[in-house]
Amino acid sequence: MRALTEIHLEEVKSIVKTGRVLTKESDRFSYSFDGSFGTFLPDAVIQTKSVEELAALVRLANRELIPLYPRGQATSLSGGPLPVKGGLVLDLSVMDHVLEVHEEDLVAVVSPGVLTADIHRAAEERGLMYPPDPSSSHVSTIGGNLAENSGGPKGLKYGVTKDYVIGLEVITPEGEIIKTGGRTVKNVTGYDLTKLIVGSEGTLGIITKAVLKLIPKPKASTTMMAIFDSLADAGKAISNMLTAGILPSKMELMDQASIIAVEQFEPLGLPVDAAALILIELDGHPAALQEEADEAAALCQSVGAREVRMPKNKSEEAELWKARKLVSPAIVRIKPTKISEDATVPRSKIPDMCKRLEKIREEYGIHLVVFGHAGDGNLHPNIICDKNDTEEMKRVEQAVEEIFKAAVELGGTLSGEHGIGLMKAPFMEMELGAAGLDMMKRIKAAWDPNNIMNPGKIFPEPGQKLELS
Amino acid sequence: MRALTEIHLEEVKSIVKTGRVLTKESDRFSYSFDGSFGTFLPDAVIQTKSVEELAALVRLANRELIPLYPRGQATSLSGGPLPVKGGLVLDLSVMDHVLEVHEEDLVAVVSPGVLTADIHRAAEERGLMYPPDPSSSHVSTIGGNLAENSGGPKGLKYGVTKDYVIGLEVITPEGEIIKTGGRTVKNVTGYDLTKLIVGSEGTLGIITKAVLKLIPKPKASTTMMAIFDSLADAGKAISNMLTAGILPSKMELMDQASIIAVEQFEPLGLPVDAAALILIELDGHPAALQEEADEAAALCQSVGAREVRMPKNKSEEAELWKARKLVSPAIVRIKPTKISEDATVPRSKIPDMCKRLEKIREEYGIHLVVFGHAGDGNLHPNIICDKNDTEEMKRVEQAVEEIFKAAVELGGTLSGEHGIGLMKAPFMEMELGAAGLDMMKRIKAAWDPNNIMNPGKIFPEPGQKLELS
Repeated sequence: MRALTEIHLEEVKSIVKTGRVLTKESDRFSYSFDGSFGTFLPDAVIQTKSVEELAALVRLANRELIPLYPRGQATSLSGGPLPVKGGLVLDLSVMDHVLEVHEEDLVAVVSPGVLTADIHRAAEERGLMYPPDPSSSHVSTIGGNLAENSGGPKGLKYGVTKDYVIGLEVITPEGEIIKTGGRTVKNVTGYDLTKLIVGSEGTLGIITKAVLKLIPKPKASTTMMAIFDSLADAGKAISNMLTAGILPSKMELMDQASIIAVEQFEPLGLPVDAAALILIELDGHPAALQEEADEAAALCQSVGAREVRMPKNKSEEAELWKARKLVSPAIVRIKPTKISEDATVPRSKIPDMCKRLEKIREEYGIHLVVFGHAGDGNLHPNIICDKNDTEEMKRVEQAVEEIFKAAVELGGTLSGEHGIGLMKAPFMEMELGAAGLDMMKRIKAAWDPNNIMNPGKIFPEPGQKLELS
Repeated sequence: MRALTEIHLEEVKSIVKTGRVLTKESDRFSYSFDGSFGTFLPDAVIQTKSVEELAALVRLANRELIPLYPRGQATSLSGGPLPVKGGLVLDLSVMDHVLEVHEEDLVAVVSPGVLTADIHRAAEERGLMYPPDPSSSHVSTIGGNLAENSGGPKGLKYGVTKDYVIGLEVITPEGEIIKTGGRTVKNVTGYDLTKLIVGSEGTLGIITKAVLKLIPKPKASTTMMAIFDSLADAGKAISNMLTAGILPSKMELMDQASIIAVEQFEPLGLPVDAAALILIELDGHPAALQEEADEAAALCQSVGAREVRMPKNKSEEAELWKARKLVSPAIVRIKPTKISEDATVPRSKIPDMCKRLEKIREEYGIHLVVFGHAGDGNLHPNIICDKNDTEEMKRVEQAVEEIFKAAVELGGTLSGEHGIGLMKAPFMEMELGAAGLDMMKRIKAAWDPNNIMNPGKIFPEPGQKLELS
């Protein structure tokens, strides 16, 4: 890996004819952090809409061993876009010029800088839906969602970003422009490079265009909130719902700590003495929905729900969802630093995972809040702490490691939707084993022999450890 | 690549302690063909349920450069399991001993030799569903479905095999046993090896176990048949249905040639003068289904359907589906050889593709029948011919090449669900470009440096051409 020299910079400027090359320290600083942890200054930042210019930059970087860091809006919670080895940041959020909906083919074609929420809107205007809905969708770019294979609450019924990507245009780490997949839902022509690249966190190339699958928008939806005196009962409700043939579009869990945090942040009439609540959204045909909602409510009551709130109209529904949306802003009021994990376990292990988390909370004396997409086992254990408190951060480090161990021991995974990035790299082998990790490394080495694409991510460096303090 | 020597055979026998090593010519002959074209004799056939024995065989083959051909029930229509370079066939259909349904996690765990239809049954017994339904599902193994990423009529609404695989146990081409993914629907820990291996046609390793995602079984379904005097109108009905927010579980097209063939094979009262018919299955909540069915029927009529048949009960429904099921047996009555293609185009291009197929039919004087999964653009142009007629087969060769060209020119793909195998390998570069194909080859070389896993498949050999005559 090399730093950018003046000679490189001249060549960079001669390549970027239609865009901008930012080198001022104030500009570079804006690109030194993301939604996670740590600050790393790049040597320069590139903004261009031109795929050819980007490809030429990649060829230069590959020849001169300059690290490249593609980036969207940098809402990453795992350090995905952090320029940990300097080099060039490629600001792809400026590539926001393509957003086509092709109704007849049920696809959207998008450039990476388009905001995910704008895709939601464009699809809905035609009676269609792009289901993946990471919480950040109003501020995050589809390019970032693609790189990280973002999830969200609708993963339970509708799957995640990867399930909706059928074609890509990609600049390889050696600067070739290739197309993968296409506009057909079925395609078995060779290896599935599309699904390999989606979720590879920018380490295998730069996505410059994507073809997304759309589906007809469900005609109606309804919401309810079920309140429980025991976390185990809440877990049972989730599990029974699915085996009873009800597949909610969302099923979100909040534990007592999150309920209290939200209620202190903004009084919404939440039951602060409850052990847990589940927010359920059902969608589908209006003729079926009421019946299904009644069934779901009865099911919650049969496993011991203290109360099931069924809102009477859309504004009451919105009130219920507000509780879930306020969790993140509410908990950072408690302490300034939020370590947001997304360890995921098989659904049936949610109660066990909750117990393990409880134990970790006590053992390390940390402030732990648990909420998330319970329907698909994708919990969000968030540790609220203060990064200036070195002693506390040491305990947080150990607690995070314990959370990962618990998830893997319960047959789960380090990360359900946030990605490995920087913080989880040291734990890869724990989940994958040496041989499994080696097969991933072989792909990286075969595609990016000079390791210029987002170096320092996913794969642990020898002896790398989690460092928060 | 080396042939099996007596010394190798002794080592093979010493490894396979719990299974069988078949070397008699009659046995080997049974393993020399599949559902496609051509006959290739392996040196020996292995049957064992032991993953450790298989891994040891792979290490031997990798050391001695012996070709390995994993195989299920060999219903492949693209030559997937053909032992084109001799060596060892691994008969994985004997690994049928694991079929567990874990209701709480909504997953099934299966070994590769289990028949796909048995997975359907096991899931349905618990009120769940494993949606992928290739036509061969009553005779094909899940291992073969995984290797080929099989599709089927339900692809339109529910996706294909790959969409339901969340974890694998795999023997790598160097004989390591690795696990990919797991039991969680969300998993972004490193590269998605699961989705890379599914559909890689046995060229990247041997799948010895899979974790499949299940979903709640829809509570009801209904069927209708819409009959059209013009193929273009049928295409419009398909397209309008989807944009109107109706997502059928199946939407199958039969052209006039297939209607006539079926009616001659077994009179079912099909309209032999119609240009096309569509068979539609809707599924979901019973309260919604009748309304949706009426809407779908009205929609077909509004774009010019001559007639919409709505069966009154399940046995009348079964009659309608019989028409579609009989297409394959009916057309081989006409001539003995069936070249079954699955070129797939974006939905909106179905009418254009139909025109191109019409032109190809006339230009090469071939007997071409078109049917298939129209809802997802996955047509099945079948050429009915006689492999002993060299002159005809020359014309068939050219026609097949023209079908591939038409699909790619219309923004589609060589193969929607049958795989590349042997016959389509020469056309890979046409769809992928040299750089795209090169990125696939790099993965193959990095994982299987000695090219022992299913050699001769997917990747064209220098100068390789389609040869049917």
